[in-house]
Amino acid sequence: MHKFSVGVLGASGYTGRELCGLVVRHPSLELSFASASSQAGSTLRIGKREITFIDSEDAPLGEVDLVFSALPHGASAIWSDRAARAGAKVVDLSSDLRPGNAHANGAPYGLTELMREQIRCASTVANPGCYPTAILIALAPLFKRQIVAPGTTISICAASGVTGAGFTPKPELLFAEIAEDFKAYALGNNHRHLAEMRTVMKGMNADNDLLFVPHLLPVARGILATITVALDHQMDNPLSLWDEDYGDEPFIEVTKDTPSIRDVVRRNVVRVSAIVAEGIRQPTLTLTAAIDNLVKGAAGQAVQNANLMLGIPETTGLPA
Amino acid sequence: MHKFSVGVLGASGYTGRELCGLVVRHPSLELSFASASSQAGSTLRIGKREITFIDSEDAPLGEVDLVFSALPHGASAIWSDRAARAGAKVVDLSSDLRPGNAHANGAPYGLTELMREQIRCASTVANPGCYPTAILIALAPLFKRQIVAPGTTISICAASGVTGAGFTPKPELLFAEIAEDFKAYALGNNHRHLAEMRTVMKGMNADNDLLFVPHLLPVARGILATITVALDHQMDNPLSLWDEDYGDEPFIEVTKDTPSIRDVVRRNVVRVSAIVAEGIRQPTLTLTAAIDNLVKGAAGQAVQNANLMLGIPETTGLPA
Amino acid sequence: MHKFSVGVLGASGYTGRELCGLVVRHPSLELSFASASSQAGSTLRIGKREITFIDSEDAPLGEVDLVFSALPHGASAIWSDRAARAGAKVVDLSSDLRPGNAHANGAPYGLTELMREQIRCASTVANPGCYPTAILIALAPLFKRQIVAPGTTISICAASGVTGAGFTPKPELLFAEIAEDFKAYALGNNHRHLAEMRTVMKGMNADNDLLFVPHLLPVARGILATITVALDHQMDNPLSLWDEDYGDEPFIEVTKDTPSIRDVVRRNVVRVSAIVAEGIRQPTLTLTAAIDNLVKGAAGQAVQNANLMLGIPETTGLPA
Amino acid sequence: MHKFSVGVLGASGYTGRELCGLVVRHPSLELSFASASSQAGSTLRIGKREITFIDSEDAPLGEVDLVFSALPHGASAIWSDRAARAGAKVVDLSSDLRPGNAHANGAPYGLTELMREQIRCASTVANPGCYPTAILIALAPLFKRQIVAPGTTISICAASGVTGAGFTPKPELLFAEIAEDFKAYALGNNHRHLAEMRTVMKGMNADNDLLFVPHLLPVARGILATITVALDHQMDNPLSLWDEDYGDEPFIEVTKDTPSIRDVVRRNVVRVSAIVAEGIRQPTLTLTAAIDNLVKGAAGQAVQNANLMLGIPETTGLPA
Repeated sequence: MHKFSVGVLGASGYTGRELCGLVVRHPSLELSFASASSQAGSTLRIGKREITFIDSEDAPLGEVDLVFSALPHGASAIWSDRAARAGAKVVDLSSDLRPGNAHANGAPYGLTELMREQIRCASTVANPGCYPTAILIALAPLFKRQIVAPGTTISICAASGVTGAGFTPKPELLFAEIAEDFKAYALGNNHRHLAEMRTVMKGMNADNDLLFVPHLLPVARGILATITVALDHQMDNPLSLWDEDYGDEPFIEVTKDTPSIRDVVRRNVVRVSAIVAEGIRQPTLTLTAAIDNLVKGAAGQAVQNANLMLGIPETTGLPA
Repeated sequence: MHKFSVGVLGASGYTGRELCGLVVRHPSLELSFASASSQAGSTLRIGKREITFIDSEDAPLGEVDLVFSALPHGASAIWSDRAARAGAKVVDLSSDLRPGNAHANGAPYGLTELMREQIRCASTVANPGCYPTAILIALAPLFKRQIVAPGTTISICAASGVTGAGFTPKPELLFAEIAEDFKAYALGNNHRHLAEMRTVMKGMNADNDLLFVPHLLPVARGILATITVALDHQMDNPLSLWDEDYGDEPFIEVTKDTPSIRDVVRRNVVRVSAIVAEGIRQPTLTLTAAIDNLVKGAAGQAVQNANLMLGIPETTGLPA
Repeated sequence: MHKFSVGVLGASGYTGRELCGLVVRHPSLELSFASASSQAGSTLRIGKREITFIDSEDAPLGEVDLVFSALPHGASAIWSDRAARAGAKVVDLSSDLRPGNAHANGAPYGLTELMREQIRCASTVANPGCYPTAILIALAPLFKRQIVAPGTTISICAASGVTGAGFTPKPELLFAEIAEDFKAYALGNNHRHLAEMRTVMKGMNADNDLLFVPHLLPVARGILATITVALDHQMDNPLSLWDEDYGDEPFIEVTKDTPSIRDVVRRNVVRVSAIVAEGIRQPTLTLTAAIDNLVKGAAGQAVQNANLMLGIPETTGLPA
Repeated sequence: MHKFSVGVLGASGYTGRELCGLVVRHPSLELSFASASSQAGSTLRIGKREITFIDSEDAPLGEVDLVFSALPHGASAIWSDRAARAGAKVVDLSSDLRPGNAHANGAPYGLTELMREQIRCASTVANPGCYPTAILIALAPLFKRQIVAPGTTISICAASGVTGAGFTPKPELLFAEIAEDFKAYALGNNHRHLAEMRTVMKGMNADNDLLFVPHLLPVARGILATITVALDHQMDNPLSLWDEDYGDEPFIEVTKDTPSIRDVVRRNVVRVSAIVAEGIRQPTLTLTAAIDNLVKGAAGQAVQNANLMLGIPETTGLPA
């Protein structure tokens, strides 16, 4: 079977390691290199295979079919550009190229289920942030139908496992600091993912403000977003909208029961539910959406996009 | 030193055991009995002391100065009534006597900081629920000043440690089910604490709806409530309101930093913060409030109320 | 591709559910039924598939190629016998048929790597306990060479995740009881797995006593066994014995680094290391062995045995 | 009430912060300074009090009655010496001055219950390591009676919470690395605490080797040591020895039930049990001992020693 050769830039963090694991187990991809400049020479074990990190400067960008960049925000754009000039297709997992960010260059936004056709033809894709993946997949059926009450604020309370905060050691991420704790962060509504979500929403003609309060969970992986959204009219069976839009999607699960992180961990899925909030004068829905921040929220969706870009069946090599 | 004799009904659950611990270490209280009908004869060890549970029917209600009832919801009201008829003062920790509940009998609501004078004179007090304690303490300064935008929905996203779900063994509360998970529950806006909060808010002349989504955390103790509330005008320094109202309170901590569960665990405090949400047309605050659900959210506040009812200094025996 | 039909008796516990998951994803097995008498009619979701539990009395034992019994200890032997009489091959995951247990009937002991040929021809196999799997795989190279100091006590300190204690809800297994705790159990050397290990060791002509202290870990899955064993002579490179015996085994990993639970979770492997203890007059080795108690310690090894019994390649459908 | 003034060197780590908390709440001690050179100027909040770290070079060593040094191993000895020359009494919590370590200077070993009289008169005390505290308290009654089988190896399997590994951020101590994992470390029998234990044992005339395998637990605090020891004769009621030696000790709890970490967390106690191992030809005991590594294993025992050195009742200010 033909295998496409791919490389991973920035392979030593949580997202990079997850990507390497997915690529190594992918039947149609071959891991050509994995770079981690600060740890060049050290190794990563995946099952029985050992991968040795190289310096990014030594990466043979021109010899692979596709490059994933999991380099840090701010450092990734230039490497994605280098890889593209060298002739590789590129999936950039940093925030650099995403809508609303400084380096955004018009590359299609890799929220696969909403952008499939653009991604298929793209040479570079800006892979979405973890929170936006869960939140925008949950909200899209409402924006598409223009039934959110205009001018209202959509209130989003979300919580992420600590791998979302990265692999760089900081005192506040030590086990003894995180265990048995829970807190909000980025209060004041200033999280980096907000610009991304606002820009994408504008493209969907949504006239709404976003209030976004992320929280840090004492779990390794997973995101749960709980979204309060006001409608312009009362609905009887809101879930039917998601069923209609996503019923055939292999990686979206619409459920009556509220999704939990456990349902989605290690899987490339968004699990979403919608329910009418009772006892409130303004017609209001509560949406809940769960993903694995490292899979559908990062490495898994990146592979899903790469599959499209390389002409491989979209679900190949992805745990559903 | 004179000691008041007290009894605990329903002492074998998480709240009951926490109460017994606080009473045993309290310099002015003497634990006269601890009942747990289903476990009569078994013992609870607190430090070097061993307490033997008795059957509630054998509790000498008439021989103690005060009875705490931590019996289950539905079963507590009748025992509180019995204890009161026997001449004891009563703090009922169940939901039975709380505002908005079926058995509510006009007993003062034991949210100490807001109801101090009524509690001081009461013979029976309805101890608040854990979520309402955190949420109402956080919201009260806004209701008092009537500055919440009328008719708007206050959106509350809260998360509780699993001791909030009780000590009765259920498969979904086993370690292997809770660890590494996170989920919302009581979706549809139907949690028992809602009636309690709505009734108290009505008493504060608040014309707002509540949307309340509780979540279950993989921690043993603690509640964090994140509250989105629309104001009728923009504010520069919202925290000053809480400083003004609570600056002298021994058990309320107003902080610039967002409170975390770790800050309050094993302490009888509410820690609260307020911040202006940026980038939203409607003036909006995000409030965060943290408590230990078993201490300020249950047993600690019950002792705080008992202190007032017995004429003991309010802070006696309470970990701040 | 031909699929063998299999059934699972006792499918609602942790082992039973793990088995159903492995069978559903197995390319050569077809799940014909899953019984759980106390929960007949309720469902188990595996990915997009839903399985409805039936009563064991309704299980079509005679219509399947093989039956896995994950029924409780004491209740399983009779059902394994029924299934065998109905013509099915049987893998019994309870302790009932294991060496040293009351119902032991001579069925081969399913410690695959040590008993492969007997298993291949067996109609019924007694699947090993979780602790014995890790411990006997670790010790076998020493017994085989008869180099353990005769008459000495082998001291085993082992720790298991809480799924090893089963899915039946008990107060001491609640999240708030297990988190942040660690303790030994079955002190006095009276764990059920001891008879199993002693009987198997006797068959290996080992003249040693076993001291076995299991501990309960605040993790969902995984066993780590730390074994102290005295040798009759000093060794330079002990690991070479394990390399020699297990170098070609697909499911045994011999490592210089001490294995950790994280290395083996969700995988059908034993990971084992051996190191000389320094500064001790009696030549002594420290062995460490890690497994996932639900996979190589139960359901995974059961499928490995079933593969052999059905003539399917041994590694089929197993996560390594 | 007279208060002794004390200072803490190395106050920013887990041990140093625990010490500051104990001192601030101690009725007879006054915290005069807390140094943390790398974080001079930053603050530590203890309840409502805020402490500002100073540079160690600025610490007024000569103006306090006693100095606790929680500086890192290797850096502490010189500061303890400086403090002693400046006229302060000293409790050194590093390994530097302990028996068997390079800088050992004859200062009494602060295992309080075994060395009380020497500590009372000492100007400098070497506070024991966490593992040795639990292990030596457990073994001492056997050594004292000379009933351990001569020449045998005592096998110790111990596990510690991650605060034992310190507050310096390392990737392997991040929450997502520790949660759901368990592993042994310092295999080969080369942990720093071994020299300490061996030297102290020699002083007790014990003719035994130690095999010591520490493990890392996914909990914040606590140590459990499980010790296998061969006796020169069979015993009927081993626990009576510990009852006899420790029955009057305020900080040692002898129990029939196996102690768990949860029993001792946040308390200055050692909890210990002893049980005869059945089915073993060599008479053998299994001892289990639990402590909080930060309290009885470090800061609590340091305060216990300081109390003795300053003539304060031994239990003052310590959570039992």
